[in-house]
Order: sequence, then structure tokens, then C-alpha cells
Amino acid sequence: WARAVRGLLLDISGVLYDSGGGDGGGTPIAGSAEAVRKIKASGLKLRFCTNETQATREKFVKKLQGLGFDISVAEVTAPAPAACRLLKERGLRPHLLVHDDLVPEFAEIDKTNPNCVVIGDAAENFSYANLNEAFRVLIGLEKPVLISLGRGRYYKETDGLKLDVGAYMKALEYACDVQAEVVGKPAKTFFESALAEMGVSPQQAIMIGDDIVNDVGGAQQCGMRAVQVRTGKYRPCDENHPQVKPDAYVNNLAEAVDIILNQL
Amino acid sequence: WARAVRGLLLDISGVLYDSGGGDGGGTPIAGSAEAVRKIKASGLKLRFCTNETQATREKFVKKLQGLGFDISVAEVTAPAPAACRLLKERGLRPHLLVHDDLVPEFAEIDKTNPNCVVIGDAAENFSYANLNEAFRVLIGLEKPVLISLGRGRYYKETDGLKLDVGAYMKALEYACDVQAEVVGKPAKTFFESALAEMGVSPQQAIMIGDDIVNDVGGAQQCGMRAVQVRTGKYRPCDENHPQVKPDAYVNNLAEAVDIILNQL
Repeated sequence: WARAVRGLLLDISGVLYDSGGGDGGGTPIAGSAEAVRKIKASGLKLRFCTNETQATREKFVKKLQGLGFDISVAEVTAPAPAACRLLKERGLRPHLLVHDDLVPEFAEIDKTNPNCVVIGDAAENFSYANLNEAFRVLIGLEKPVLISLGRGRYYKETDGLKLDVGAYMKALEYACDVQAEVVGKPAKTFFESALAEMGVSPQQAIMIGDDIVNDVGGAQQCGMRAVQVRTGKYRPCDENHPQVKPDAYVNNLAEAVDIILNQL
Repeated sequence: WARAVRGLLLDISGVLYDSGGGDGGGTPIAGSAEAVRKIKASGLKLRFCTNETQATREKFVKKLQGLGFDISVAEVTAPAPAACRLLKERGLRPHLLVHDDLVPEFAEIDKTNPNCVVIGDAAENFSYANLNEAFRVLIGLEKPVLISLGRGRYYKETDGLKLDVGAYMKALEYACDVQAEVVGKPAKTFFESALAEMGVSPQQAIMIGDDIVNDVGGAQQCGMRAVQVRTGKYRPCDENHPQVKPDAYVNNLAEAVDIILNQL
């Protein structure tokens, strides 16, 4: 599975580090910072492909740098900028149900008199009142448009598993009888834009992630190989997933990178 | 549609009154208190069939009495007692995600070391922290069991539309990849127990409600006739519902009762 590679896409949370939540620092996963350095030294193309929507890219890249990772904003593919492109293209004015720290990513977007709802991983902002408010905007639209920054079911933070944006997306979908448009993994267009930014074909790229559906399944749908790490939100029952079979399992990012670099 | 009737099932919220939420009094719907009195005077059997789970039956019956309705606890079929029967039968110990005021309905139930989650319309208790806690209990079970007190999408209170338990049920279903067991409308067993309590057959009964799916669709699935009132959560687009066609529309409960009593 590790042969003939020209580029790697890395998920961030659960692969590089376990998030401590919004402002919590989180904990680097052993060997991951060194593994990123080895990739860069190898000459392989590298892109961080995340559904992180709890902070602007600037902010969480700074956090990762503080944890010892060699990473810059320009190397990150994230849902919020992709959503902004989509909003502009279609003349949509969002009501935002997102984390406070993500709001600056939408600074350039007209948010008056909303004609759609954008939902991200709002964490503490997923209050009863805020959910009701987003619901009322949606149900009041003649043709409700719901844009979701990812469709993850849950993720792991240092203090335990947390519901991800996908769960709340489903709540609004059901209440309003609409289908959300997903921006971010596992959307095909999202992986394709990451590949285009790297300048490699799907066949030349490997995705490394901890999410069996959004990382592994999504990347494979795009024609890429995909490897699941046994860190982050990984659970043993993932290995019996009825639909998705990774090209390989590895204990962590460090092991994946060693195997890949040995094949170069 | 109003002929050969022996019993009526009435939804409460949106039919008798518009709820003001937990402790808010709410507003009676014009003519509804008088209509209930007329039904009782007519000799028709009567049962209130509600998915109300924001308070014990004692508490919301008292509220309705205060609003002028002739109603007693013994006349009410509600999800919490039905759930308690189910929990006892199957030896289930619930983690409760319900409204504070509903907790006394579960006083007799063992809640130590939970092996299932019971979700009701928890209102303000639908916080980010509480949703995560219920999620962690469920995902930690070898075979997750989720019991939902209804599957309503939303309802109307005096200050606007609110998400109902069904939306949060969907969030947990998606996150844990389980299917909830619904107690309450539109579950067939729930309507059947209301009919048994009245001692009438489905063919002799009419359900009157404001919810096209849970009241009208559910009752019709049971072989009853069902009428939708144009009060409460009724919306004009309900009249184009792709699956459910009520036996009649009426402007409100008073009109329905007048038509039915004229046929006796």
C-alpha cells in the first residue's frame, strides 16, 4: 500500500495530537512531530486536511506550532474557507452556528437577512437557544439551505468523546426535512481541492486519518489510498466497519511514515 | 368522517392550548375548554393522548386545570409511564436526558449503572454538556439502547417554534449508529393502549391533533380516523404532505367537536 507515493494528506486531530478543546492545549501524539519533519525532509508533498472548525486556521496552526509541529497556514485545507467560496459563488448570506473562534473566517461574508444556515463544530455554542435560533431561520426559508462544515459523528478530546457537527446537522436536517450540503471531509470536492493544491493525482496520494468514514472512506471514494491510525477516535470495532476497509492499519502516524519512507 | 364515533383522542399542546414552555402558563386556544366540556356532556369516551414530557402528568394537568380545562391525570396517556413499563419489563436502567420536571415519573426506576438512555423533550437540559454525557453512556454500551419519548420534529410555544425530542434523538442515533425505540406517538402500541383505556375500537375513534405525522399519521396507521386542526404547529404546507392525508381539516378543536356532535 505504501508504494509509488508522491504526496501525503494528514488529518490533524487524533493523528498529530489529541485536542484539549477550544483553548485547551491538547497533547501531541508520540512521534507525530518527528514524523512531520521526516515527511518534509523526504521531498514528498504534504497537505494537512482537517475538518477543524473550532478556530481560525491561524489560531489552531499557532497552537500546533506551540506543540512542536512544523506547520503553516498555507499548508492547511479546512472547511471554512471552502464554505466561504461556496457562499460567494451562490450569493448566500449565512446565519452562523459555529464556534466563536471561527467567526473571523467569515469576516468578508454578508450575514444580513440570512438565506441559509452554516453549521460547524460549535462546541459550547451548541446550546438549546442557539439550536432553536438556527432552526427557526431554516424553517422560515422558502427553500431551506443548510451547509455543514463536515459530517463527523464524534471526536476525542483529552477529557473524553464529544459529539461532532454531524450529530447536530442531523438534528436540523430532521427538524426541517432538508438534506445538508457538506463542505469538508468526506466531500469529494474537498479532497480534490487538497490534491490540486499539492499538484498530485489521487493515485499518487495517501490519506492518513483516525476517522474510518470521513478520512478513510472519503479519500478512497476519491481514488486515493487511505490508512487508519490506531490513535485519536480510533476504536477496535472500526476494523469491522461494514462499508469501509482501509488500505492498511498502523499504530500511529510515526509508523505510517516510516513504512512509506522505506518504500521511496 | 365524523359518523359512528364512540371515542375521541385529543392531543393537548397546540389543540387545547399553546404552551408557554416549562413553567410559562401558555394560552388556551379559543373555544377549546368549552369543546372539552361538550365532549364530556355528550357521553363520548374521551382520552387525552399527549407526547408531553416537560413535566409530570400531575403538574401539567394542574396547569391545564388552571387554564380552565376539565381534565384529570387519569384521563391522560403520556410517554413517561409507558417508558417505565418498558424499562421494568426488560430490566433496563436508564440514564435520563429529560426535563427536570419529568424526573419524578421515573422515581421507582433503578438508575444506577445505566444500560440504556431515555431521551425526552429536555428543553433547557439539551445543553452541550448533557448531550455529550448521554452520548458517552450510549457509545460505551456493548449494545446501545436508546429509548425516545416521542419523535416530534418541533412544536410551537408562545415565543416561537422549538426543536422537539425527535431532533435530538436523531443526533444520538447518528452519533452512535443506533435506531431509537420510540415510546409515545406515533408508536402503534401507544395509540393502542389509549384505545384500550377507553374501551373502543380504532374504527370507533377519532384522533384530533395539530401534528400531521405524529398525531394524524400515527392514528391512521392504527386504523383510526384522524383530523388535523389549523392551530398549534399546523403550517399550510402540511396540507401537501407527501405521505399523510388527514380525514379532514378543521380550523380548531371547537369546530371539530361541533361537527362530530352534530352527527351523533
